[in-house]
Amino acid sequence: MSISSFHPPKRTLMGPGPSDVNPRILEAMSRPTIGHLDPAFVGMMEEVKGLLQYAFQTKNALTMPVSAPGSAGMESCFVNLVEPGDKVIVCQNGVFGGRMKENVERCGGTAIMVQDAWGSAVDANKLEDALKANPDAGIVAFVHAETSTGAQSDAKTLVELAHKHDCLAIVDAVTSLGGTPLKVDEWGIDAIYSGTQKCLSCTPGISPVSFSEAAQKKISNRKHRVQSWFLDMNLVMGYWGAGAKRAYHHTAPINALYALHEALVILQDEGLENAWQRHQNNHLALRAGFEAMGLNFVVNEQDRLPQLNAVTIPDGVDDAAVRGQLLNDYNLEIGAGLGDLAGKVWRIGLMGYASNQTNVLFCLGALDAVMTEMGANINSGEAVKAASAHYK
Amino acid sequence: MSISSFHPPKRTLMGPGPSDVNPRILEAMSRPTIGHLDPAFVGMMEEVKGLLQYAFQTKNALTMPVSAPGSAGMESCFVNLVEPGDKVIVCQNGVFGGRMKENVERCGGTAIMVQDAWGSAVDANKLEDALKANPDAGIVAFVHAETSTGAQSDAKTLVELAHKHDCLAIVDAVTSLGGTPLKVDEWGIDAIYSGTQKCLSCTPGISPVSFSEAAQKKISNRKHRVQSWFLDMNLVMGYWGAGAKRAYHHTAPINALYALHEALVILQDEGLENAWQRHQNNHLALRAGFEAMGLNFVVNEQDRLPQLNAVTIPDGVDDAAVRGQLLNDYNLEIGAGLGDLAGKVWRIGLMGYASNQTNVLFCLGALDAVMTEMGANINSGEAVKAASAHYK
Repeated sequence: MSISSFHPPKRTLMGPGPSDVNPRILEAMSRPTIGHLDPAFVGMMEEVKGLLQYAFQTKNALTMPVSAPGSAGMESCFVNLVEPGDKVIVCQNGVFGGRMKENVERCGGTAIMVQDAWGSAVDANKLEDALKANPDAGIVAFVHAETSTGAQSDAKTLVELAHKHDCLAIVDAVTSLGGTPLKVDEWGIDAIYSGTQKCLSCTPGISPVSFSEAAQKKISNRKHRVQSWFLDMNLVMGYWGAGAKRAYHHTAPINALYALHEALVILQDEGLENAWQRHQNNHLALRAGFEAMGLNFVVNEQDRLPQLNAVTIPDGVDDAAVRGQLLNDYNLEIGAGLGDLAGKVWRIGLMGYASNQTNVLFCLGALDAVMTEMGANINSGEAVKAASAHYK
Repeated sequence: MSISSFHPPKRTLMGPGPSDVNPRILEAMSRPTIGHLDPAFVGMMEEVKGLLQYAFQTKNALTMPVSAPGSAGMESCFVNLVEPGDKVIVCQNGVFGGRMKENVERCGGTAIMVQDAWGSAVDANKLEDALKANPDAGIVAFVHAETSTGAQSDAKTLVELAHKHDCLAIVDAVTSLGGTPLKVDEWGIDAIYSGTQKCLSCTPGISPVSFSEAAQKKISNRKHRVQSWFLDMNLVMGYWGAGAKRAYHHTAPINALYALHEALVILQDEGLENAWQRHQNNHLALRAGFEAMGLNFVVNEQDRLPQLNAVTIPDGVDDAAVRGQLLNDYNLEIGAGLGDLAGKVWRIGLMGYASNQTNVLFCLGALDAVMTEMGANINSGEAVKAASAHYK
């Protein structure tokens, strides 16, 4: 056996994440590693916390990156807030609500499921009914931006309902952070987690989280120890907490945090509102292209995420063949359907650095060419023109 | 608020990890991100598994990197193998045995502690007594290379004892992998975890693990679901398992895995035995220097780890002042004592890429200069000479 260094192909990443990474971030990631208790590193940690507070629009002191991917960020919210016997209302309208249910049950809690169709937003009325039927529930959990369908739910209204019924609200913002309006304090979100590889266009592997004072209080007053040592916020905060003295908990992923720092500096420099506007603008251009081509969106217009565009695959078109040709001939990755939507939809990401005019036009042109070659029933040659017109 | 890009100082990392990272690895980490289901990435994953099997000296099919730091690798071994009510014998001779106890208890198990002095190896006789006294124990856990003290335990003998009493053996190899002989299959280890930031001299953030067939069988036959969704090996293997079809579990930390791949290629190219020999050789040079200076090792000669050298701080020397001056004036990081040894010892790492002649001589020279300036009672000017002589 003799294995050589790995040199990845250069892809354009327009799936559900990871998205294209800004070269500034890749360069930052390759800077020299220093110690996790080095004063220079501790200073950088403080900046990361401040920048995350800005990105989340919160003043929560307990705002920090979990040293593992978004799935671990999700788990950190549930293991810290759910105790054995707790009842949690979980709104599901795609894959990730199902994962929330798994988390609740593995913490010894009971998940009351509120189901909506995949591709729909969470229905506030159904949540209210569930809250009324379960006055002993203590937590409501839902996904703000469903990565599996491209649907956006009205987080503000859902959190209000949770609070009205004395519940804390856990929100999945993996795909929304940095790409679409998200206001943790204004909306009163109690626990939120995200990922680095979506609209922050950073490398995958880290999960920003934030907990409100009410959530922190619940964590401090738990009856049982948090079942995960690695994700126990009581311990993690000894390292990430304010103050000069940092207690060793685990070895932080130093270079991945350089990357996150750079990604957040880029977001700060662009301005959050400008980033949201850019995502919306490129989404509208892509939409114009898809409509001209004759492809239909999965999600109703008012609930669509600008950064994740799920479109129905036309009848007779071979899903895997199209994605394979895009990857092999165009070095372009788009996303397949997940779960109930597997084989039925494509998911086109316009996230962070990847949300730009070049990517929109390149993707539409490539998809048009591949489908036309396969004899698909689309309006060949119209998509790029329509999208270009949007930018004029 | 306006925060700028972070440019870390260039340190020499000779603490307990992270250790100096080979520039080849930093460069690999900055290569373009591709998708976690991209066929090119899946091919690289297979190579990482093969290279890890080589590093661990195992044919275990379930050998892979956990997408989080060593602490999560530890937790992945315990949450998968320990069920509520299980009795686990934990040998403790430093900080990390204590963390194992925490893990056992958070899984609902009972930890039977076998205590040895910090700085000593685990006493096989004490383990045997505990095994005889607890015939219902199902697992033995111990640390092969205690990062908090620099003591190495006789893993082969301890695993044999565990098996003789029908127990599985969980081994912490965070600091041993790649630095000192470790033979998973020959010694019969059932579950093992390590870290990337020690003797693989990679960036921190990933934890290689390996499970024997017996361990896999126990995981498949569990009565209760694994309490962590993120670390559930039954699910993780859907993504990392062999076969063309990879099921999405979580988004892999793509670039961190490029780095690990490169680190393992470097280890392969050097050869495992050569790497062990290099660590031993540089350790002997450092030892010659410390002895000439008049510093004493914490650990008995036969139990010393070559890659982590704990020495007693001479009376009257201000621990924090010395480490502070080394960092500020020499950009040199050495490790402080942990737990019971805080303020009493320094820990000098010679791990992976950092285990080289330049670092040995630089560290001895800097420590000599700083302590001499502070008026410490050492044989000033002798250390570098003695270590240099070793290399001649």
